[in-house]
Amino acid sequence: MSLNEKLNWRYATKRMNGTKVPQEKVDSILEAIRLAPTSLGFQAFKVYVIENQGLKEKIYNLACQQPQIKESSHFLVFAPNRKVTTELVREYLAFFASERGVSIESLSHFDELFVNIINQSEEKNFAWTSHQAYIALGIGLVAAATENVDATPIEGFNADELDKILGLKEQNLGSVVILTLGYRDEETDYLFTKKKVRKSKEDFFVLIK
Amino acid sequence: MSLNEKLNWRYATKRMNGTKVPQEKVDSILEAIRLAPTSLGFQAFKVYVIENQGLKEKIYNLACQQPQIKESSHFLVFAPNRKVTTELVREYLAFFASERGVSIESLSHFDELFVNIINQSEEKNFAWTSHQAYIALGIGLVAAATENVDATPIEGFNADELDKILGLKEQNLGSVVILTLGYRDEETDYLFTKKKVRKSKEDFFVLIK
Repeated sequence: MSLNEKLNWRYATKRMNGTKVPQEKVDSILEAIRLAPTSLGFQAFKVYVIENQGLKEKIYNLACQQPQIKESSHFLVFAPNRKVTTELVREYLAFFASERGVSIESLSHFDELFVNIINQSEEKNFAWTSHQAYIALGIGLVAAATENVDATPIEGFNADELDKILGLKEQNLGSVVILTLGYRDEETDYLFTKKKVRKSKEDFFVLIK
Repeated sequence: MSLNEKLNWRYATKRMNGTKVPQEKVDSILEAIRLAPTSLGFQAFKVYVIENQGLKEKIYNLACQQPQIKESSHFLVFAPNRKVTTELVREYLAFFASERGVSIESLSHFDELFVNIINQSEEKNFAWTSHQAYIALGIGLVAAATENVDATPIEGFNADELDKILGLKEQNLGSVVILTLGYRDEETDYLFTKKKVRKSKEDFFVLIK
């Protein structure tokens, strides 16, 4: 199947059948998410990978009781950093220098960029780090479809409560979007047979030759 | 090549060689972007697909003179809606009803959700629509790699000026991110041989069994 056939196959699965996704498929999806590009390579978010059924039940109640949360195999919480701090930047540059085998001094071209970002408000920082997490979400969606795993992104949840449950705020993180992984239940999912609705190319793209 | 091999192959190409990407590959990448899921299926953004060299030169000057803009084959501007308006929602619901062959009345479960969104500030609306555009960006990045096309996301540009050039504000749109498409110039791109830097799995994921 081509990538676009896979993207047509996928849909926002509303009912899952509880079957476990094999570990190697989960690993492959997580690896794609880890490889997602981010602005300045900064990867200012963490991804929580939750299999615990008790935790799923709790989060189900924070997310409009969407059954696929309880019925999923795994679910991922994308949690970007709220504030870009000097410490985070220092850690990143040290890691980057060590990975590339260069001195930290040779990375001074990053300094001005990061100082400008650190000086922004927490709100702007969180918007920026969230954008990067959404790129990774998009890549994770494709990776899941490639593995024939269903994946449903969910924005409709009580982020403050979820942050409390996972202790995110203390870690300078905030949840922005969830991705459930599992397998569609064709019998119970009303959406399974429904036509995918997308704007036409003509409405969606503006071509400038 | 597996998806993750493709994702390892790709990198933020800083120099492109000007070669045109064949139309069928561009079409395939755009189709993936069009198929990207969005919250409520609302697709509240447009994607500008720019081949015009004069326009590339102008935008090059608004984007820290990054050479890959001029050297790209196509570049895409992701432009979400700034404000979610009653009119946009009405159009969407009419389109959705027609695509699914149902009455608009049967979609009344959407009403409350959209009213809440319409009542939010323009800033919140733009944040929400931008998130959806970033999902599509992530999917576009994978689609490009799948087609062996290089793709570089760029956030460092003067969005106000780009919006003026493209007349976006008048259309209730705002540019948030660019994606250049083309082919790497292995001779001139200093980044071509550099190691990809990504956090380890242990640092990036939090597993809760």
